[in-house]
Amino acid sequence: VFAGVDVGGTKIEVAVVTAGMELVGVAQRPTNSTSPTHIVAGIADALTEACLVSHTAPLTVRRVGIGVPGQVDTAQGQVHLAVNLNLDHYPLAREVSTAFGVPCVLENDVRIAALGAWHYLWGRERHGRLAYFNLGTGISAGLVVDGNVMRGAHGMAGEIGHVVVEPNGELCACGLRGCLETVASGAAVTRQIEASGLMEILRGYGAETPRARYLYRAAQAGQPEAIALVRRVSRAIAMAIQWLVMAWDPQMVVLGGGLTRTGELFFAPVRAEMAVWRESSSLAATMLPDHKFALLPEAFNAGVWGAALLAMNDGSERQ
Amino acid sequence: VFAGVDVGGTKIEVAVVTAGMELVGVAQRPTNSTSPTHIVAGIADALTEACLVSHTAPLTVRRVGIGVPGQVDTAQGQVHLAVNLNLDHYPLAREVSTAFGVPCVLENDVRIAALGAWHYLWGRERHGRLAYFNLGTGISAGLVVDGNVMRGAHGMAGEIGHVVVEPNGELCACGLRGCLETVASGAAVTRQIEASGLMEILRGYGAETPRARYLYRAAQAGQPEAIALVRRVSRAIAMAIQWLVMAWDPQMVVLGGGLTRTGELFFAPVRAEMAVWRESSSLAATMLPDHKFALLPEAFNAGVWGAALLAMNDGSERQ
Repeated sequence: VFAGVDVGGTKIEVAVVTAGMELVGVAQRPTNSTSPTHIVAGIADALTEACLVSHTAPLTVRRVGIGVPGQVDTAQGQVHLAVNLNLDHYPLAREVSTAFGVPCVLENDVRIAALGAWHYLWGRERHGRLAYFNLGTGISAGLVVDGNVMRGAHGMAGEIGHVVVEPNGELCACGLRGCLETVASGAAVTRQIEASGLMEILRGYGAETPRARYLYRAAQAGQPEAIALVRRVSRAIAMAIQWLVMAWDPQMVVLGGGLTRTGELFFAPVRAEMAVWRESSSLAATMLPDHKFALLPEAFNAGVWGAALLAMNDGSERQ
Repeated sequence: VFAGVDVGGTKIEVAVVTAGMELVGVAQRPTNSTSPTHIVAGIADALTEACLVSHTAPLTVRRVGIGVPGQVDTAQGQVHLAVNLNLDHYPLAREVSTAFGVPCVLENDVRIAALGAWHYLWGRERHGRLAYFNLGTGISAGLVVDGNVMRGAHGMAGEIGHVVVEPNGELCACGLRGCLETVASGAAVTRQIEASGLMEILRGYGAETPRARYLYRAAQAGQPEAIALVRRVSRAIAMAIQWLVMAWDPQMVVLGGGLTRTGELFFAPVRAEMAVWRESSSLAATMLPDHKFALLPEAFNAGVWGAALLAMNDGSERQ
């Protein structure tokens, strides 16, 4: 058996699965990020509990895969920087391995989710080429080929949140102007709702805070300013999808992350942008067919499944 | 020994090389694209001549790699479409193999040039991750990992010429508006020189036709309209480079193709755009350092070297 661990900002989730990818036990803990030691203890406790409930002796777990929201050096088993977890140059793989007694392998949470999405789509198949596009507080993407994640020369492949899409656009936290994240991230949508004075209007749609959900509802109800902002965001997302499709040429593109949680309310306007392209371009019709795109279902825990797959793959990659 | 063939619109070039990548003979022929049969005969003749001059018995050539400007199905050995060669769904690999008596493998010319650029940079090393960015009449890119080209699920990986960079931009031949090729291809530069009335000004810099070379000269001499157009083109190229770097995370990015032939006149303004980003962003400073970028030297024939490498690799890929 193998174990997958998803270390999030609020909770740690664990799954124990067989080599045939059958789920045999799960467990979770709140994340205590006051110190690295607390995180390691939380992971080890959750792993032990998941073994207990699945009647698995911990030392029969062959390997543990761990997904972390931040910059990760998989070869060294180090978390370079995970702001939400208070980890900075921390050898998390070694520490968890010592605490739980089983070898561990680390990966960035978006690449892990990409692996999870790949499993969701293709199950036990060992082939297929999938792009996962994460639109959350930040933006990044991952490519999985035949069940292995692409990392790149510096572990940065798919880190597209700070590509410049509007040369004279808004100043981004990274120092550049008009990064993709200044237009199309969850945080950017919130900021644009506030900056445009849309918040007052969204209160009429039940909003108490400037959340994307209410923006999409207002746009669907025909509110013109909401439609304009949704259009702007959706167009940037469609353009980013087109870049990923033409750079990576995947069979499927799966979208996930906080911004996608409103489901078709979020995705229909993105599909609409691509539908317009398909009407006028046979290349777009070939490369961006509607059936190439899917949303990650909220009920599917891509984080733990992906982490379990990583454990099975031994962190190997196919670039 | 192996042979590499570069089939261009005007000439066919051949090189015979050893497994250690030593050049033992070359030959060339004008391209006669009046019929597929003429092209096959031209390739076979040039191959025979290159063998003769290198004292190589043709049947000791283990494999022939062939680069073609167009859409290629490597697995089937078919040219789907190569407009300049008048080839459409033509089994070029089989035909050349029959004519010359040696197995052949086909690939698109930009991916072949990417392999050639990889050889240029790293010689006999079998590792390294290189992006090749071709700015010619059209625009596309190729990724080489450990000496193998990335093709993608439909052989379209790197075909970034028609990603939308200006949603309300100029109408492209592909049917979309504001494709990268409408701003930054050689053809787009020519068209923008004509549309902007710059041609009259460029005559003062020696231009008889609206070629990019004179635009760059005029910009370097301080001509304001030329500077504005060069800025627009260079910014689009810098943005595309940033997309490729963040999507693929290569160690090196090599630029080639007609538009790059003016050398530093072309490249300095692109470097300048990235230098501005580096000043304000540590992520840009890390991912876009000046030493990551190089121009393909005009004297290096990336086409035949890449084709020879393809022959050595047997067309295998690492995605």
